[in-house]
Amino acid sequence: MIDWIAFDADDTLWKNEEYYLEGRDRFLKILLKYGLNAADIEKFDRFEVENIQYFGYGVMSFVLSMIEIGIEITEGKIQSADIQKLISLAKEMLSQEVEVFEGVTTLLETLSANFPLMLITKGDLLHQQRKFAASGLAQYFRAIEVVSDKSSAVYDGILNRYTIEPTRFLMIGNSLRSDILPVLELGGWALHLSDHPTWSHEDDPSEKNDQERYLGVKGISQILDKLVETGLLSQ
Amino acid sequence: MIDWIAFDADDTLWKNEEYYLEGRDRFLKILLKYGLNAADIEKFDRFEVENIQYFGYGVMSFVLSMIEIGIEITEGKIQSADIQKLISLAKEMLSQEVEVFEGVTTLLETLSANFPLMLITKGDLLHQQRKFAASGLAQYFRAIEVVSDKSSAVYDGILNRYTIEPTRFLMIGNSLRSDILPVLELGGWALHLSDHPTWSHEDDPSEKNDQERYLGVKGISQILDKLVETGLLSQ
Repeated sequence: MIDWIAFDADDTLWKNEEYYLEGRDRFLKILLKYGLNAADIEKFDRFEVENIQYFGYGVMSFVLSMIEIGIEITEGKIQSADIQKLISLAKEMLSQEVEVFEGVTTLLETLSANFPLMLITKGDLLHQQRKFAASGLAQYFRAIEVVSDKSSAVYDGILNRYTIEPTRFLMIGNSLRSDILPVLELGGWALHLSDHPTWSHEDDPSEKNDQERYLGVKGISQILDKLVETGLLSQ
Repeated sequence: MIDWIAFDADDTLWKNEEYYLEGRDRFLKILLKYGLNAADIEKFDRFEVENIQYFGYGVMSFVLSMIEIGIEITEGKIQSADIQKLISLAKEMLSQEVEVFEGVTTLLETLSANFPLMLITKGDLLHQQRKFAASGLAQYFRAIEVVSDKSSAVYDGILNRYTIEPTRFLMIGNSLRSDILPVLELGGWALHLSDHPTWSHEDDPSEKNDQERYLGVKGISQILDKLVETGLLSQ
């Protein structure tokens, strides 16, 4: 019933959001010195999303937005030593070890014996490639696609290039916005990991997922059973 | 004799280095206020290259390096308003219109009628894709590959994926380090545009190019004649 299975990477196969939350915490601690309130915090979140149009997704975008909002929020009072701390944070996040979630290796071993697997991930190109290499998971994947956005047009382009029928394609990921909805829109299968940590921007809980090809599980350990239950994988 | 022709993008098909030089000038003007000498300028160049390991190639990397060296060079005295100017510079560079070099469209029209063309470019993924779309040249290309580095291993990976024989592959570009030497190393053909503006890091004038498959011309207007002369293109 399916020819290819694709996986998202960040927060699907390995830890990611947690590092951003830690980074955000460090930023907020810095800002505390300059006087900060709840409205200021919200301002950063909005700013970060607005800056995606320029900087895209990833650590560099995150840190450039922190520097920019840090200057605005402190009315220019932020000290250069604090800005240096943010740049060091970027370097630290970009060199972070990759922590693969429990159960991922076994899952990929099983699935790669039955299907060609593809990684579809968005963000800084260099950083994503480096994490892929460092994860030790590259051996299970037939292809990797780093994209700047995960719209249905982008998925459509990938399916065309690999000549994959949408109805014979399954995407697995933690983000409704990026991994699930655009694939369902094309008529593909999508499996959502609902209990994985997810950046609020990537979640869209207002969307109903009553479509036939939507599968929902809590985490990695439930994927195989769900695929067998749906008939996508034979026991 | 060849099955595919690939082009570099920045400084090969469209203006690029000039924007970086302008950005660097604006940065140096900012630093003038804090007292600057020739050694400081050299420090920035070294810093930028050192930071590639974290930030890769592109505008965000360039500007993060300027902010970092700006803080170091001024011993923390750089004002946040000046740092904001650098972030605004990044946004400006990332939204810059694409200025295609003279003769490129005609050249691509002719070549795409004879060969499948590929774009192989490095830098910020989002920025490179946006420039490609904005250039109006996408119609001439069969494939685009945005890479984080242009080593011979990266070219080897691309040739494998497209099942292209190295000896039947021609790369055209302005950078000896990124477009020419790694392709020659694999046994491919490489055509160097020696008069195009090139970042010093990308040039490697010490290298001898006496290899059979190395072709050199000054600019875009001489490419067709050179290919005919070499027998790679029939008249």
